[in-house]
Amino acid sequence: MTPDALRALLQAVVDGTVSVEDALRRVTHAPYQELGFAKVDTHRALVQGAAEVIYGEGKRADEVARIAQALLERGQNVVVTRADAATAAALCALAPDARYVERGRVLSVVRTAPPRLGSAALVCAGTSDLPVLEECAAVCGAWGIEVERFVDVGVAGLHRLLAVREAIDARDVVIVVAGMEGALPSVVGGLTKKPVIAVPTSVGYGTNLGGLTTLFAMLSGCSSGVVVVNVDNGFGAAAAARRMLAR
Amino acid sequence: MTPDALRALLQAVVDGTVSVEDALRRVTHAPYQELGFAKVDTHRALVQGAAEVIYGEGKRADEVARIAQALLERGQNVVVTRADAATAAALCALAPDARYVERGRVLSVVRTAPPRLGSAALVCAGTSDLPVLEECAAVCGAWGIEVERFVDVGVAGLHRLLAVREAIDARDVVIVVAGMEGALPSVVGGLTKKPVIAVPTSVGYGTNLGGLTTLFAMLSGCSSGVVVVNVDNGFGAAAAARRMLAR
Amino acid sequence: MTPDALRALLQAVVDGTVSVEDALRRVTHAPYQELGFAKVDTHRALVQGAAEVIYGEGKRADEVARIAQALLERGQNVVVTRADAATAAALCALAPDARYVERGRVLSVVRTAPPRLGSAALVCAGTSDLPVLEECAAVCGAWGIEVERFVDVGVAGLHRLLAVREAIDARDVVIVVAGMEGALPSVVGGLTKKPVIAVPTSVGYGTNLGGLTTLFAMLSGCSSGVVVVNVDNGFGAAAAARRMLAR
Amino acid sequence: MTPDALRALLQAVVDGTVSVEDALRRVTHAPYQELGFAKVDTHRALVQGAAEVIYGEGKRADEVARIAQALLERGQNVVVTRADAATAAALCALAPDARYVERGRVLSVVRTAPPRLGSAALVCAGTSDLPVLEECAAVCGAWGIEVERFVDVGVAGLHRLLAVREAIDARDVVIVVAGMEGALPSVVGGLTKKPVIAVPTSVGYGTNLGGLTTLFAMLSGCSSGVVVVNVDNGFGAAAAARRMLAR
Amino acid sequence: MTPDALRALLQAVVDGTVSVEDALRRVTHAPYQELGFAKVDTHRALVQGAAEVIYGEGKRADEVARIAQALLERGQNVVVTRADAATAAALCALAPDARYVERGRVLSVVRTAPPRLGSAALVCAGTSDLPVLEECAAVCGAWGIEVERFVDVGVAGLHRLLAVREAIDARDVVIVVAGMEGALPSVVGGLTKKPVIAVPTSVGYGTNLGGLTTLFAMLSGCSSGVVVVNVDNGFGAAAAARRMLAR
Amino acid sequence: MTPDALRALLQAVVDGTVSVEDALRRVTHAPYQELGFAKVDTHRALVQGAAEVIYGEGKRADEVARIAQALLERGQNVVVTRADAATAAALCALAPDARYVERGRVLSVVRTAPPRLGSAALVCAGTSDLPVLEECAAVCGAWGIEVERFVDVGVAGLHRLLAVREAIDARDVVIVVAGMEGALPSVVGGLTKKPVIAVPTSVGYGTNLGGLTTLFAMLSGCSSGVVVVNVDNGFGAAAAARRMLAR
Amino acid sequence: MTPDALRALLQAVVDGTVSVEDALRRVTHAPYQELGFAKVDTHRALVQGAAEVIYGEGKRADEVARIAQALLERGQNVVVTRADAATAAALCALAPDARYVERGRVLSVVRTAPPRLGSAALVCAGTSDLPVLEECAAVCGAWGIEVERFVDVGVAGLHRLLAVREAIDARDVVIVVAGMEGALPSVVGGLTKKPVIAVPTSVGYGTNLGGLTTLFAMLSGCSSGVVVVNVDNGFGAAAAARRMLAR
Amino acid sequence: MTPDALRALLQAVVDGTVSVEDALRRVTHAPYQELGFAKVDTHRALVQGAAEVIYGEGKRADEVARIAQALLERGQNVVVTRADAATAAALCALAPDARYVERGRVLSVVRTAPPRLGSAALVCAGTSDLPVLEECAAVCGAWGIEVERFVDVGVAGLHRLLAVREAIDARDVVIVVAGMEGALPSVVGGLTKKPVIAVPTSVGYGTNLGGLTTLFAMLSGCSSGVVVVNVDNGFGAAAAARRMLAR
Repeated sequence: MTPDALRALLQAVVDGTVSVEDALRRVTHAPYQELGFAKVDTHRALVQGAAEVIYGEGKRADEVARIAQALLERGQNVVVTRADAATAAALCALAPDARYVERGRVLSVVRTAPPRLGSAALVCAGTSDLPVLEECAAVCGAWGIEVERFVDVGVAGLHRLLAVREAIDARDVVIVVAGMEGALPSVVGGLTKKPVIAVPTSVGYGTNLGGLTTLFAMLSGCSSGVVVVNVDNGFGAAAAARRMLAR
Repeated sequence: MTPDALRALLQAVVDGTVSVEDALRRVTHAPYQELGFAKVDTHRALVQGAAEVIYGEGKRADEVARIAQALLERGQNVVVTRADAATAAALCALAPDARYVERGRVLSVVRTAPPRLGSAALVCAGTSDLPVLEECAAVCGAWGIEVERFVDVGVAGLHRLLAVREAIDARDVVIVVAGMEGALPSVVGGLTKKPVIAVPTSVGYGTNLGGLTTLFAMLSGCSSGVVVVNVDNGFGAAAAARRMLAR
Repeated sequence: MTPDALRALLQAVVDGTVSVEDALRRVTHAPYQELGFAKVDTHRALVQGAAEVIYGEGKRADEVARIAQALLERGQNVVVTRADAATAAALCALAPDARYVERGRVLSVVRTAPPRLGSAALVCAGTSDLPVLEECAAVCGAWGIEVERFVDVGVAGLHRLLAVREAIDARDVVIVVAGMEGALPSVVGGLTKKPVIAVPTSVGYGTNLGGLTTLFAMLSGCSSGVVVVNVDNGFGAAAAARRMLAR
Repeated sequence: MTPDALRALLQAVVDGTVSVEDALRRVTHAPYQELGFAKVDTHRALVQGAAEVIYGEGKRADEVARIAQALLERGQNVVVTRADAATAAALCALAPDARYVERGRVLSVVRTAPPRLGSAALVCAGTSDLPVLEECAAVCGAWGIEVERFVDVGVAGLHRLLAVREAIDARDVVIVVAGMEGALPSVVGGLTKKPVIAVPTSVGYGTNLGGLTTLFAMLSGCSSGVVVVNVDNGFGAAAAARRMLAR
Repeated sequence: MTPDALRALLQAVVDGTVSVEDALRRVTHAPYQELGFAKVDTHRALVQGAAEVIYGEGKRADEVARIAQALLERGQNVVVTRADAATAAALCALAPDARYVERGRVLSVVRTAPPRLGSAALVCAGTSDLPVLEECAAVCGAWGIEVERFVDVGVAGLHRLLAVREAIDARDVVIVVAGMEGALPSVVGGLTKKPVIAVPTSVGYGTNLGGLTTLFAMLSGCSSGVVVVNVDNGFGAAAAARRMLAR
Repeated sequence: MTPDALRALLQAVVDGTVSVEDALRRVTHAPYQELGFAKVDTHRALVQGAAEVIYGEGKRADEVARIAQALLERGQNVVVTRADAATAAALCALAPDARYVERGRVLSVVRTAPPRLGSAALVCAGTSDLPVLEECAAVCGAWGIEVERFVDVGVAGLHRLLAVREAIDARDVVIVVAGMEGALPSVVGGLTKKPVIAVPTSVGYGTNLGGLTTLFAMLSGCSSGVVVVNVDNGFGAAAAARRMLAR
Repeated sequence: MTPDALRALLQAVVDGTVSVEDALRRVTHAPYQELGFAKVDTHRALVQGAAEVIYGEGKRADEVARIAQALLERGQNVVVTRADAATAAALCALAPDARYVERGRVLSVVRTAPPRLGSAALVCAGTSDLPVLEECAAVCGAWGIEVERFVDVGVAGLHRLLAVREAIDARDVVIVVAGMEGALPSVVGGLTKKPVIAVPTSVGYGTNLGGLTTLFAMLSGCSSGVVVVNVDNGFGAAAAARRMLAR
Repeated sequence: MTPDALRALLQAVVDGTVSVEDALRRVTHAPYQELGFAKVDTHRALVQGAAEVIYGEGKRADEVARIAQALLERGQNVVVTRADAATAAALCALAPDARYVERGRVLSVVRTAPPRLGSAALVCAGTSDLPVLEECAAVCGAWGIEVERFVDVGVAGLHRLLAVREAIDARDVVIVVAGMEGALPSVVGGLTKKPVIAVPTSVGYGTNLGGLTTLFAMLSGCSSGVVVVNVDNGFGAAAAARRMLAR
C-alpha cells in the first residue's frame, strides 16, 4: 500500500465513508488469495513488475492447476517453469490455449498480450545448454521480450563468435548461457557494452562440480559488469532482463 | 573495428588512398599502447562503454602511476580501485586533482565530466559493509551515476527497511550490499520492480565461509530477477549498473 | 541411576534386603531390552524426557515392528519417523490404532494421551517445504505440543508474513522450515521474542548445495538467538521444542 | 505497531485528536534513531525481548561509543561483544561503571538490573574453549541469566562428566561449548532432558576445518533435540537461552 | 626377493647351476600371473601377510571367477568383498564350499584354515551400520581373527556402552563402526587401552556429507591413538587388525 | 584467416578480382556450416590440428548423426566420444564402416588413414580404470597414435610396475590412468623422462570424492613435469598426446 | 571402577568398614584433581595406558606449568606437545631435567624410565615433513618406543626407498609421515606386513588444501590395512603405536 | 640399473672380476648421497632427464646451500625454486656466478650450458600473474628452453591476444599462466595446435578460492588437449615443457 493510498484511506475514515474496522482490515491484510496449501499473490504484478510465475518443481499437477486457475480467473497470464509432462497435460486440459515448450519445460497461457519490452540476445556455448536457454526464451516470450538465439559459439572456436558479434551487440540485453569452464560471458562482455547476464549450467563432469565451477569462473571473470544468476536458472535471467527492460 | 569502418578501409584500398600493407596492419593490430609490463587498452571506452579501470591490487604504485599517465595523456579519466595509501600518494603527486576515497580504496581523476547516466540506490545491511558500498559509490560517481545511500537496514529490523522502501524504489537501479546470511537482496527484490544487483561481502564468521554463504544464499534467493556479482566486488556492481543505465 | 536411588540401594545392602550381587547387577546393568539386532531403551523417557523414537530409515519393516512391539508391551507410545509405505503397513497390522502421516512419513501409536506441553507455530516458506513441516507437526502432535501452520509466507512477499506476525508471536515456540536462501528465520526472529528453531530443507538447486547453503545462511543470520537443527530434520525441531516446553 | 495500537490511532483520527498527516507518519515511520552511519534500534527491547547488542567487530571504537551513548541516554543497558582493548577503553571513558571481560571480549554497562530469568549450565570440553564460554557467560550475566561453569569435562574422560551430570541437569538450560569432534553435546543431550544449545568452536586443526567439522558433527548428533548456533557464537547461545527463559 | 635369496642366486650363478640369463629373468620378473585383464599377485601373502583380496566392485562376475580360480589352483583361500548376487552365484558355482555373507557382501572360500590371530571387538553405534560391520566381521573370520559384536551402543545412551565396557576391553583390538557424528570411537578410546580402529560409515543425512563429517570428527577426536580408515571400509579395518595381530 | 591469406585477399580487391562486399564477407564470416542446432567447424583441422570430435553426451542420436554426416560429406573422419548404444546404432546405419569400442564408448569412422604420429604407453592402475583407458586408446587409434597397454600395475605391488618400466619408457608419451589415491603417475614420472599425462578416474569411494582426491593428489605429486587432464577425460589425454606428437 | 573393586566396596559397606555416604562418594566421584581451569586426570594411565599428555596449543605457559607440576607431584612423567618457547622455558624452570625437542615442539620430563615397548620405523617423504616426524619421535621416546628414522625416501625416487625396505620391515610398527600427494604409505604398505600408520602433513600448496588432499589420498590408498591419523598429528601416531605395542 | 647393466654385472660375477658381495651391494643400493637431513639424488639426470631441482620452501638457507654444494661438486648445475632472500644470499656466497630472479624467486648456477631444447611461448593474462610466469621462465632458461613472453593478453580484450596469435603459434610449446576465471588457456588452445600447458594462479578473490576455481575451469575447458599443472606451479610447467621438448 503506497503512502498515497494510505493517505486516501485515512481521509476516508475521517470523512466517515470507511469505518475504522474496515480501514484496519485494509491496512493489515495483504492482497493474496488463500488456497489452503498456497497463498496466491495476485497483486505481485503491481509490486515486482510481473505476475507470479509458478515454480513447478515439487508441486503436484493438480496443485499447479489450481494456482493457475486462480490467476486466470483474475485475468492474469500464467507461466509455469520446471513443468513436467503431467503438469503440462493438466494445464492444457484447463486452458486449451496453453503453450508448452518441452525442451525448456515451460508452460504458458498468455491471454493478455504483454507490452513489448525490448530485445534480448540469447547466446549459448553448446547444444547441451539448450534446455536452460529455452527456459529463458519461453519466459521472455511470455513477457514481451523478443529473443534472438546465437547457439554453439563457444570460445574454443572464436571465429564463430566473432562472426555474430555485431548482431549480439544490437540487442538491448545479452544473456549468455554456458557450462564447462564458463569463459563465454567474459569474452562476450569484452565485445559489447550492453548488460550481460550470465547463466551457468550444470553441463560438464569432473571438476565442473555440477555447475559450481562454471558459476565461480563467471563471477571471477575479468570483463567488468557481467552479472550472474543461479546454476541452470534460465527463468532468473529472463526475470533480470525484465527488470532492466521495464525501467 | 566495425563493419562500416572495415568497408571504408577496403574502399580506401580500392581507391588507392591506403596501401595494402597499411590496411593489413590496421586490420590485424589492435588499439592499445605497449608499456612493457602492461598493454593499456586506450580504446576500451568505445567497445565496452567505459575507459579501462585500473585494478590496483598486486600492482606497484609506480606501475599504476605509469598506466594512469598514459590514460591522462590521451584525455581519458582515471579510476583506480583497491588503491592503497602508497598508490594514492603516487597518483596525487601525478594529478593534484585526484580524489581518494579511503574507505572504498578508490582513487579517481575526473577531468572530463561524464554524462549523467541515472541514479542508483545503494542499500547496505550493516556498517561493516561500508567499505564495499563506498567502492561502488566512488566508481558510480566517477561515471556519472548519482547514488543515494541507505545504510543499516538489515532484515532483523524490518521497520527500518520498510521506512525507506519507496525512496529506494524511486531510483533507476538498486544495489544491495550485504554480508552474513545475505537475505537483504531477496527482501528488497520483493519490494521493487527495479533492477536489483546484489553484492555479497565477506563480513561474517564461521559458516559465512568468507562470503561464500552470502553469495550462495543470494543466488538461491526467492525474489526473481536479482543478479549477483563476486564477493566484495563493489566495482563490479557499479560496472553492471553502468551497462544497464547506458542503454 | 540418581544419587538418591543409589543411596537407597546401598542402604538396602546394609539392611540385608538386597544382596551384594544383586546390588552389583543393578548398578552396572542398564535398563534396556536386548532384541539381538537392537537394544530398546525402555527407560529413556525418564532420562531424556521422551520415549525413544524409532528412526525408520535403513531399517526393515519387520525390525521396526519388533521394536515397536517391545515398546507397546511396556505401555509406551510409539513414534516412527522416515517410515515408508511397507513400514506403515507392518505397523498398522500390529496396531490398528496406528496413524500414518504420509507427507511427513511419520507413523504414531498414541495409547496414553501425552500431557499438553504448549503450542508451536510452524512457519513454512513454500509448499515444497511441507514434507519436513509435516514430519515436525506429526511428532509434535504425538507429544502433546499443539501446532498451528503458517504456510507460504516467504520473504519475497513480506505482506503475507506481516499479516500473520502476531498470530505467530502468540505461540510458545516458533519453528521455521525453509529452503533456498534460508532468510525466513532471520526475518521471523526479528518479529518475535519467542524461541525460534530454524529447520533448513534441501529444497533448491545449484548453489543451494542440498540444503547446506540454507543451513549456513541460517547460522549466519543476523537475528540473535535463532537456533538451528540439521537439514530436513523436522523431528529434531520437535524434539528441541519438547525440551523447551517440558521445563 | 500492534493491531490494538493501530485501532486506537485510527480512532484518534476519527476523533480529530490526531491529524491525518500525523497518523500517516506514525504508521510508516519506525522507532529508531539515525546516527548517520547507523540506525540505533531503540525499541528492539519491545519486539525481540532484549535491547540491541553492539557487535564490535569491524566498528571503530568511537563508533561503538556513539551507539552506546545513544542507548545509555535512553536509559538502556549496553552490551558490546567482540570488543577489543581500544573499544573497551573508549567505553570505560564514557561509562566508568563499564565492566570488561577480557577473555570473552565482552563489555557491559548494566545500570538497570535485569530481572532474573533463570539459570544456565555452561559446559566446556577444554580450556581452549574458554573464550567462547566466557563471551556467553558475560552476556548471560548482563541479561539476568545465572550461570554455572563445568569446565574440562570432555568425552575422552567420561568419569569427569558423569561426576557433574546431576548438577548440570539441575539448571534450566544447558549450553555446551566444544571444539574438535564436537561429541560433547550428544553425550550431554543423552544425560539431561533440559534444552541443550551446542556452540561449536574453531579449536582444532587439520580435519577440524575451522570449526565446520565440529558444527557438522553436532548437527548430525544422535541425541534428539540438541540445537546449534554458529561457530564461536557464544553470544548467540546466550540469546537463544534468553528466548527460552523469557517465555 | 630378499637379500638372502639374491645372495643365494648370485652364488648359484658363480657355481654355474644357474645361467646368467636365468638369473636376469628371476631378478627382474615379479611373481604374478598374467590373466590379460588382470595380474594376479600370487605371492602377496609373503610380502604383505595376506593373500590378495578381490575387490568386487566394478568387476564382472566372470572376471572375479577367473581370478578366484587362479588363486584356488595355487591352494590359496579366496575372499571377495563388495560381491553382488551375480558374483556370489558365479563363485558358488565354481566352489560349492563358498560362503556368502549377504549383509556384508563378502564371499569367501576358506580351504586352508588360517592360524588363529587373536580377537577383535566389533562395536557398532546403530543398526544402520551393520553392513559395514558385517563386511569387517566376514573378512576377519576368513583370516582367523575371532570377532565379538557389540551392536547399538551409541553415545546418546551411555549406559548401554558402559555395560559392555569391560567385555570390549578384553579383546585384542577394538574396531568401532559409526556414522552420524562419529563420537563413539572417542568415547570408546577413553575406556580402553587397546588399539582402536575407527570406521566411519555413510549413514546420515544433511551435514553428514556422505560420511565425511563422521570421518573428520573421528580424526579430530580427543581420545589419543585412535586410527581411522576410509568411509564404509570394513575390509580395511580387518586388514589393519590383521597387521596388528600378525606381529 | 592467416596474414598471408588476408594480404592475398586485399591484393585481389586492389586487382578488382574480388569485390569490396565479397572481401568484407570473407573477412568477417568464419568457416563453419550452420545446421540450426549446431555449427560444424569444418576447418578446425587446420587450426587445432585435428578434426572436431563430437562429444556425444547430451546429444540425441539423430543430432550426432547429422553432424557426422556433415563431416563425412567433406571427406573428414568422424570420432564420437561418450557414444551410447543408440548413437552407435545410428552411426552404424549411416556408415557401415563405423567401429564402436563399447567399453570406451567411442565410435569412429576412419576413411582417410591418419599419418602415424608416434606411440603412447597407456598405463592403468586397476581393471576398474579400463573404460577411461579404452576411450583414450580408441581416440589415439583414430588419430594415428599407436598404443600399448600396461594394465594392473598399481603401486601396492611395485614389482608388477618395475617389470614393465623399460617398455613404458620406450614409448613417445606415457598416459597414466588411475583412480583411488592417484599415486601411480608420481611413481611412473620418477621412472621415465618421457612426457607423462595423468588421467584421474572417478573410481573409488568415500574420500575419493568422485575423483577429486585423485586429481588433487596427481597435481600435488612430487615427480616434476607430470601434467593432468580432467577426471575421466581419456579423450583429453589423447588430444594432449596429439599436440605433443604432432609437433 | 572395575566390577571387582565395586564388589569389594559393596562388601565393605555390608561389613560396616565403609559408610554408605563414603561408598556413595567413591562410586560417583572420579579420580581427577581440580585446578579450577582444568581437571587433571591423574588416573588415565590406568585406563588408557599412558599418562595424560598436555596439549600445549592455546594454553598459557603458567597453566601448562601448573598441570605439569600436579603430574610430577604424583610421580608421573610429563609430556607436552605443541610447546612453544615460553612454555619450554617455564617447564625447564620447574624441572631442570626437562628435555625440549625444538623442531617437534615437544617437551618431556621422564623421571620414571618407561618399559621398552618395541620399535618403530619413522619414514618421511621429505625434509619439510621433519617437524611432524620429530614430534612423533619425541613422544615415542618418552614412552619407551625405540625409533629409527628413514628420511627423504619419497616415491619420485623409488630406489632410495627400496634400499631401506628391509630395515623398515624389521621394526614392530611403521609410521609414515608424508605431505603432497600422500602416496608413500601406499607404497610402503605394499612392501611390509607390519602395521602402517600414515600421518598426512600440511606440506604443499594449491590442491594440497592444507593437507586434506594428502589425508584423502592416504585413506583412498590401495594398500590394505594402512590406518590414518589427523593432519600433522605426529603425537597421534605415537599414541596409536603405543596402543599396538602395549598389548 | 638397466637390464644391460645388470647382465654385465652378472657376467662379471661369473668371470670373477666382481665378488658376490660387491654385486649384491651394487644391485640393492641406489645412487644417492646421504647428507643426514637429505638424500641428494645425484643420478636423477639420467632417469628423469634433468638434475634434481631444490624446492626452497621450508628449507633453511644453510640446508639449501649444503645440497647445492653437493650438486656443484659433482659438476651438476643448480636450480633452486621458492628461494627467499636469505637463501639467495647463502647461495651467492657459495657460488658468485649464481643468478637470482627475484620476482620468480628462482636461483640458478649454470656452469655447464644446457643443450638448446626448443622454444616456449609464455602467455600471461595480467601483470599479477608475473611471479609465476617468471618462475617458469627462469627454470626454462636454466634448462636451455628459449622463452618469449606475451604479457597482458586477457580474454576481456581479445584484440590484444589476436594480435600475437601467430607469434605464439610459432613456438614449440605454449605455457599459459592465468588467474581469475582461467579462460585464457581455452581460448589460446583454440588458436594453436601446439602443446598447451595451463598454469592456474592464486590471483583473484571471492569465488576464485585461492586458484581452485581457475584450476577447475582450466580442467573443464572446451579446447581439447590442454593440460594443467598445480596452482602457481610455474616450475612444473617448465618441467612438463622439458619432457615434451627433450623427446
